[in-house]
Amino acid sequence: MELHLGRKLLFSPLLKELCQKQKIVLIADTRLKDLYASALARHLNADLFLISNQKNEKVLISLLKQLLAKSYGKDTIFLALGGGSITDLVGFAASIFLRGVPLILLPTTLLAICDAAIGSKTGIDTPFGKNLIGSFYEPKAVVADLDTLDSLPEEERTQGEVEIIKMGLIHDPSILENLDIQKAIDAKRFIVSKDPKDQGLRRILNFGHTIGHALETASEVSHGKAIAWGLVLESLLSVQMGYLSPSDFELIHKLLKPFLKEEVKKRFRKEVFWQSLMRDKKRAGGDVRSVLLDQIGRAANFDGNYCTRITLTQIEKAFSFFYDYDPSI
Amino acid sequence: MELHLGRKLLFSPLLKELCQKQKIVLIADTRLKDLYASALARHLNADLFLISNQKNEKVLISLLKQLLAKSYGKDTIFLALGGGSITDLVGFAASIFLRGVPLILLPTTLLAICDAAIGSKTGIDTPFGKNLIGSFYEPKAVVADLDTLDSLPEEERTQGEVEIIKMGLIHDPSILENLDIQKAIDAKRFIVSKDPKDQGLRRILNFGHTIGHALETASEVSHGKAIAWGLVLESLLSVQMGYLSPSDFELIHKLLKPFLKEEVKKRFRKEVFWQSLMRDKKRAGGDVRSVLLDQIGRAANFDGNYCTRITLTQIEKAFSFFYDYDPSI
Repeated sequence: MELHLGRKLLFSPLLKELCQKQKIVLIADTRLKDLYASALARHLNADLFLISNQKNEKVLISLLKQLLAKSYGKDTIFLALGGGSITDLVGFAASIFLRGVPLILLPTTLLAICDAAIGSKTGIDTPFGKNLIGSFYEPKAVVADLDTLDSLPEEERTQGEVEIIKMGLIHDPSILENLDIQKAIDAKRFIVSKDPKDQGLRRILNFGHTIGHALETASEVSHGKAIAWGLVLESLLSVQMGYLSPSDFELIHKLLKPFLKEEVKKRFRKEVFWQSLMRDKKRAGGDVRSVLLDQIGRAANFDGNYCTRITLTQIEKAFSFFYDYDPSI
Repeated sequence: MELHLGRKLLFSPLLKELCQKQKIVLIADTRLKDLYASALARHLNADLFLISNQKNEKVLISLLKQLLAKSYGKDTIFLALGGGSITDLVGFAASIFLRGVPLILLPTTLLAICDAAIGSKTGIDTPFGKNLIGSFYEPKAVVADLDTLDSLPEEERTQGEVEIIKMGLIHDPSILENLDIQKAIDAKRFIVSKDPKDQGLRRILNFGHTIGHALETASEVSHGKAIAWGLVLESLLSVQMGYLSPSDFELIHKLLKPFLKEEVKKRFRKEVFWQSLMRDKKRAGGDVRSVLLDQIGRAANFDGNYCTRITLTQIEKAFSFFYDYDPSI
């Protein structure tokens, strides 16, 4: 997979060269129509399809039907323009359309550039949980044009920053100094290259996500807001279980404090939270499992499993931090 | 991929050993419920799901939703029991459920044993054409129990025999002597191993299928009945275009004569046939393409493309054989 990170990439000759001799289908977030999508479709002489940024079955089936109706062949290349929901869904569509057509990802959010577009995971969410249907599918290239970030809403930038902090916490503390995008991408590529099919090391990418995902469902807040809390609470679990020092936790707390929103607490529904955890528990073979840190910049190894069983009592204990949280302190 | 071909395999210790330590989900053709499915589920201590043998979006989505509702995890193994429609659909489901769970195919028809279950292609049909949505996904094992063929209806046996004849025509003429199942499987495995992603040699497996698929749509007959005609008509194209000798064609005609059913002629709708070909043409980048034989047991190479452009005039010419066919001659 080729990765191109820089400015002025979307309309440079690069993309045209990458698509040579292929029929181009550009699938873009409908909100990007006037910003980049229509202009890029004209520039590339591509057919344009606009979709909503919800990666669910309905959007997927509707897209596939539109594509099938046009009788595209194996000489087609899919380009996905948008955030992580778009790159995940279009990646999945590319992997199953005619059993796989070439794919280029054009991520336009910080989160998609650092996370979703790297690592070949595609998929959609279902009413039963996130990312439960999908595939591993390597794009031909990822072209990340940093210019697209200039128009990014603050909230979306925040989501990306939270994931970059996660990369720093689990793999490379130098990332935490100035939230360097290239370093965060390098870290993710390194981890994925060691474990492409998610059977060991790659699990460390789930740090903050056991609790974070359940919070996302329980509070119906954005991924970034939920994961920020997840990172702090799973760091606290790491302290409780004797892996991380309290002073390291304090540093992590300080780092993530600007991202810990009251909204997540206010909207929190306890029953939904536990239901969601229980479903993950069943899916994981009967245990709730979490990645833990043993220091800032390193996830605990657990004999190559990179996650461990955590008890509901431990989670309850960590949650007193959440329930009692006072942002003014 | 392990292949086990023999008798008394379904209820032997083999399957249990292959599934060790995994939660077993048995997905079977609903028509096999009383014949094997319920008993096998009990034998394996598996959860049983019965589905219709139509590999379409509706059956796929319904199956996935039932599976998701049960919160199966990555420690689940899918077993597919049935004909090619079942193994194709369940294979596809296994490839996208949690981004892929292990899969064992238990083909119960001659066609599925010799063709669908071998070669890692999965997929579903759509109103726009056959197998347009799917994946390449290698099963852990294929366990083909020949006992299941004893209860096979004549029509389904015929479908398998037609595909075995195809394998003989394109790759190994010795298969034609007594339609040997093991030899047909070996031929398919050899071809697939040389070209797993369908970019060259594997195309010879489409012999008979350019015309056959369009006939299947146009006459709404079973795959086997349509492909039998497709094999004869594409053999005739091979003669017309100077690759195959007329005497070889006569041998092929004689071999396939028992499979050339009047029903296909009677139900033939010409407009639908050409529409279907035109859609394939667009999908193939503007040409109708076909595999041709240059002798019995060998598909023409065409510089490693293993197929060539055929004109509508050539097809029309070959079709006079179809229109004028008198089974008594």
